[in-house]
Amino acid sequence: MFTLHPVLEKDTIKLGEFPLCHALLMNDANYPWFVLVPKRHNIREIFQLKETDQAQLVKESSHLSQQLFEYFNADKLNIAALGNIVPQLHIHHIVRYTSDPAWPAPVWGRLPPLPYAENKLNELLEKLKPCLANKIEWDI
Amino acid sequence: MFTLHPVLEKDTIKLGEFPLCHALLMNDANYPWFVLVPKRHNIREIFQLKETDQAQLVKESSHLSQQLFEYFNADKLNIAALGNIVPQLHIHHIVRYTSDPAWPAPVWGRLPPLPYAENKLNELLEKLKPCLANKIEWDI
Repeated sequence: MFTLHPVLEKDTIKLGEFPLCHALLMNDANYPWFVLVPKRHNIREIFQLKETDQAQLVKESSHLSQQLFEYFNADKLNIAALGNIVPQLHIHHIVRYTSDPAWPAPVWGRLPPLPYAENKLNELLEKLKPCLANKIEWDI
Repeated sequence: MFTLHPVLEKDTIKLGEFPLCHALLMNDANYPWFVLVPKRHNIREIFQLKETDQAQLVKESSHLSQQLFEYFNADKLNIAALGNIVPQLHIHHIVRYTSDPAWPAPVWGRLPPLPYAENKLNELLEKLKPCLANKIEWDI
């Protein structure tokens, strides 16, 4: 039975669900940083998913990526399945700008997380909702 | 017309070709570090690939991942499409151990690359060949 890892529960805001994945927003205002988590029990690596789930994952990842790229007018996306610390398979989708505080390095380990102010978060969520709502069931 | 980016050309050893991707070995003996590069011109993000190529990419990535995971008896794989510096879409596949010199951090920016000694490289390539050869056309 799938349950979200407690670290992901603590560090993110739930946006909604694709057919396969939870869509989460990392509570770190340094970067627009999203995470997809396949709702599958005890999976740590992408190759451990069934082939049909792997195909669905790339569809959901690419849909999210394209929406984020356009909505945020990104310079680059960084997409990564690392999981060295949190073992539950989760795929980072980070919007990068050449002006962001970690560029051109990867974001991990660079800056302490900067939690969103409540009004900024609500504003972001209200704006994101229409751009993602056609493919995900929205939680909030 | 697709040509491999000169930085990837310089930093890697060509292993062979899947139907979609070049399979490369990063010339860095700190970690078993592989790179897949879709043979498609002017693509920077996974979502910019055609849907059929996206599906093929996840197949090739998962095949490589499973072979590497088993062959190297990995503790974890790190899979990432970053591309902040080299714009040509390339997907890192890095075998991680809890005993490796960057663990649990991501590998980027941690250690200077450690080029393989020629005999070590040849030994690795000879061993890798049978474990990958059933799906890729081998270059070497």
